[in-house]
Amino acid sequence: MNLFSAGIDVGGTKTLLCLTDEQGNILEEHKLETQLSREPETFLNWLFAELEHCCNRNGGTLSSLKGVGIGFPGVMNERTGTLTSAPALNWPAADIRPLIAARYPGAVVLDNDVNMAALGEHAAGAAAGSGHFIMITVGTGVGSALFLDGRLYRGAGFAAGEIGYLIVKPGEYNSAADPEYSEFGPLEMEASGTGIGAKAADYLQSSARPSVIRGLAQGGPVRAEHVFAAAERGDEAALQLLDQAYEHMAAAVKNIVITLDLELVILGGGVVEKNQRYIDEIAKRVSRYTPHQPVAIKQAVLGNRAGAIGAAAAVRSKLTSSV
Amino acid sequence: MNLFSAGIDVGGTKTLLCLTDEQGNILEEHKLETQLSREPETFLNWLFAELEHCCNRNGGTLSSLKGVGIGFPGVMNERTGTLTSAPALNWPAADIRPLIAARYPGAVVLDNDVNMAALGEHAAGAAAGSGHFIMITVGTGVGSALFLDGRLYRGAGFAAGEIGYLIVKPGEYNSAADPEYSEFGPLEMEASGTGIGAKAADYLQSSARPSVIRGLAQGGPVRAEHVFAAAERGDEAALQLLDQAYEHMAAAVKNIVITLDLELVILGGGVVEKNQRYIDEIAKRVSRYTPHQPVAIKQAVLGNRAGAIGAAAAVRSKLTSSV
Repeated sequence: MNLFSAGIDVGGTKTLLCLTDEQGNILEEHKLETQLSREPETFLNWLFAELEHCCNRNGGTLSSLKGVGIGFPGVMNERTGTLTSAPALNWPAADIRPLIAARYPGAVVLDNDVNMAALGEHAAGAAAGSGHFIMITVGTGVGSALFLDGRLYRGAGFAAGEIGYLIVKPGEYNSAADPEYSEFGPLEMEASGTGIGAKAADYLQSSARPSVIRGLAQGGPVRAEHVFAAAERGDEAALQLLDQAYEHMAAAVKNIVITLDLELVILGGGVVEKNQRYIDEIAKRVSRYTPHQPVAIKQAVLGNRAGAIGAAAAVRSKLTSSV
Repeated sequence: MNLFSAGIDVGGTKTLLCLTDEQGNILEEHKLETQLSREPETFLNWLFAELEHCCNRNGGTLSSLKGVGIGFPGVMNERTGTLTSAPALNWPAADIRPLIAARYPGAVVLDNDVNMAALGEHAAGAAAGSGHFIMITVGTGVGSALFLDGRLYRGAGFAAGEIGYLIVKPGEYNSAADPEYSEFGPLEMEASGTGIGAKAADYLQSSARPSVIRGLAQGGPVRAEHVFAAAERGDEAALQLLDQAYEHMAAAVKNIVITLDLELVILGGGVVEKNQRYIDEIAKRVSRYTPHQPVAIKQAVLGNRAGAIGAAAAVRSKLTSSV
């Protein structure tokens, strides 16, 4: 066996591990229920024990690995390794890098999960070969990672790409005191799974007209998947609700492409996965706007494997780059 | 004399030259009426003759210069030196780099004029010390330059920062066939000098209510400066027109700051120069939006000198950088 790098994608419910050789061939992928702990130390003990098991199964040990990359769901200062704004893990701000150094002596690459997923799509997915792209994830919320001039772009405070907060209507100020906006931003309220579900629930409450959505929700909470399924059956309300979501997402995509002169937009996440229509609808609307910059709009191809694959790729890139 | 670098800002009507020593001290600044020619060769003969005169006045010759930086009003591929979309110069797409090499043997740095102005503000103006900022120019149109991770960002096709085309209303497609949009983009139609003037003219035509703007325009075309002057006198229509312009610009600024996690926004150009109120109104509105990222909003300080100073700085940076 030729163990080289490990990539780990830490999620609030699932954690994915991936081992690769020096060429990036995947030796093993492993999915675990995340063992949440109140202290990052306890969590990391569990994580590195699992990683050691993985290495053992592949004829090596933790020290066979030249490096480990980890993506976390929060704002990560990739230089110091300080993790903040990670509600899924429920930790206070944590200095991750020294905690890992105490458990593993090799090279360590830390970043947020969306950046790692973008690296995964770049290394082995829909963004292969591109030097200027954005990867947008549409799920419960809307997030993104920016890859500019051939490398990740993180911003002045490691918070670039938080496009769920994009303003969709000038002058419509949202107050931080408004509970509706405390968690989700304006673009998310229009175009995320949460936003689409909430708009549909509002519609059903305010309209007595029949809609397939009602039957699909079966009296439970209305979710985005009900709206997509109803639209597939030609339901007028569902089609109109999705039209609004597409219009807002397409305008946001176009504005990002204009600002950054990107050649590629990757869309992924639960709402977009296995939903080619979503891609087609966004691409159609983006192309209506002027100027007509050539930009490809593609579906992410690695799904929830992207983060772990990207984290492993980040290690290889760090250890083999001459820069 | 210690001639080191020359910076040149080529404009449709004025061309500015700047000579500096190795430390960046300005030895001479010189403003010329641009001698437009149908062929770039003729123009460059004139330009380098003027530059030679400048060097002579400072006790040297063209070959005393270690490098020359030039900013052009158009889309510049800084690697190949190909200039496109330069209506002010009325040339076909031109390969500038070999034409300059035939006239000057030293280092040559080429870029568009807004990028050079951003480098000027970074070297000796409002952006000194910042690694993550945008410089927005508001004049006849709206343009910008992006400085990310400590360097200019140009995009996949050297067209990054064309924010005059930002969509201000999702789904409001502007057709390339619409003459109103063939030259100006949606944000420009709301917030540029041209846009503010056009909105005011529309208002005066559709309303019989008295407005100070009417008297200021004296029967001639309504310009943005009339609207700003009327607003200073408390004219209700002018205040409302500017409020709309500010709202649109503030939303655009906020969206760019969110996407790129910038620490600084510099505003310059004819509409903003000597107009601190413009800065204050944008800053006030940006701060109303959540999330509350810390971002400074400042006026450009170098005015129309920024481009030439930045072009000279680009030469020094190229020749002294170890990267």
